[in-house]
Amino acid sequence: MSLQSIQTDFVASVENRDAAGAILLVCEHASNAFPAPWGRLGLTDAQARAHVAWDPGALDLSRALAARLDAALVHAPASRLIYDLNRGPNRADAMAPRSEVHDIPGNTGLTPLDRLHRAEALYLPFHTSLQAEIVRRLALGRPTVLITIHSFTPVYHGQHRAVEFGVIHDADDRMARAIVAAAQDLSGLACALNEPYSAADGVTHTLRLHATPYGLANAMLEIRNDLIATPGQVEAMASQLAPVLQTALATMAEG
Amino acid sequence: MSLQSIQTDFVASVENRDAAGAILLVCEHASNAFPAPWGRLGLTDAQARAHVAWDPGALDLSRALAARLDAALVHAPASRLIYDLNRGPNRADAMAPRSEVHDIPGNTGLTPLDRLHRAEALYLPFHTSLQAEIVRRLALGRPTVLITIHSFTPVYHGQHRAVEFGVIHDADDRMARAIVAAAQDLSGLACALNEPYSAADGVTHTLRLHATPYGLANAMLEIRNDLIATPGQVEAMASQLAPVLQTALATMAEG
Repeated sequence: MSLQSIQTDFVASVENRDAAGAILLVCEHASNAFPAPWGRLGLTDAQARAHVAWDPGALDLSRALAARLDAALVHAPASRLIYDLNRGPNRADAMAPRSEVHDIPGNTGLTPLDRLHRAEALYLPFHTSLQAEIVRRLALGRPTVLITIHSFTPVYHGQHRAVEFGVIHDADDRMARAIVAAAQDLSGLACALNEPYSAADGVTHTLRLHATPYGLANAMLEIRNDLIATPGQVEAMASQLAPVLQTALATMAEG
Repeated sequence: MSLQSIQTDFVASVENRDAAGAILLVCEHASNAFPAPWGRLGLTDAQARAHVAWDPGALDLSRALAARLDAALVHAPASRLIYDLNRGPNRADAMAPRSEVHDIPGNTGLTPLDRLHRAEALYLPFHTSLQAEIVRRLALGRPTVLITIHSFTPVYHGQHRAVEFGVIHDADDRMARAIVAAAQDLSGLACALNEPYSAADGVTHTLRLHATPYGLANAMLEIRNDLIATPGQVEAMASQLAPVLQTALATMAEG
């Protein structure tokens, strides 16, 4: 296969590009597609459907939020097990040979060239597309707040997680704190700052790459995936979270 | 003119891509070319040759350092007055209507679309190319330290500057401090940390965009341009600075 032909196949998807809202939504773990030339990486059907392969519900929730917030949305075209777009290519877990309790056979013994091919096929086009959206908005003078949307599994390494809605920040915590405050006021969700992960776990790569260099307010949202497992649940969650995000935006604007 | 035709014309230049050294040199203000469709922006010949248009000597020094350090080099194709590649598109001084004591007629009254066209023609391709180099190195497991090379004018707003060699850091100051220490040991240069500018002046955009998100050691070097005005001076300066950078690298590796 030629590298060139791979590169053109796996661009990011951009929806609602000309939406008027200040929020730009990003969903790096939107997909559990396992396209050629990599294929299923030796996973079972059940694994390929489960949280190890993607963030179930995150894309559906992102779209429901995009509609309510008049927000643009950038999302990923393939499983994070082929390449985790929220990790730099110098991170072992960008192409993890093991994730939680799952071995990933197709990620064992990758050569430097294997890693390069995946980074050039998936990581570079995704982040180039996302940067192009940000640059376009900033050059045009449009307010921009970067929000990444993730979901997490209710049981991890055998432990049940009580938190329902986590808000994670990197160096700039303004938007994350405003969201937590609004969620505590407006929603019945069990909400926590920097749960179930924090920047110390290396999960804020997209924020560091695209928000911090431009001084853009930003946050990473984590929703427990059993709360967004059906279309009805997704709509209900979006209806709870949209006013939370709007209130946080308004707080920032007053700030 | 079509935007597409502009975009393909102004890619970054990459030299010594497969050089074995850990240092990746970047020269954002390498060029005083004023290509169509923008042209000279109403500047005089003297202005177009002067530091307001570019960093005189910086590309020559970068090349002389690249040879001595076995380093790759990424440099800009056009004047910083058309687009300053070390500034995000939300910064007024990315396309400055005035710089030091100079009015820039062609940068007055730019529309949002003018700004967008320049950002898409110059900023995006440059940083996409630079990111591709970094991603390639990291995916292949190659050590990478990002060093940007600038020059500054000896007289600014009528004030003479005594510093000859400035080393500027952003959040991660390890490499900058190692370079200053080595310069004080090994060179006769009047060297200072965070002179004649610092991160507070908004001059570390390239470092924030390309080094910080990957945890790469980095620094921005500023050389007074009267010390690199002739080929002989450039070679002499490169011969002073190459061992300084090698020593700083070795310090980092021990650290």
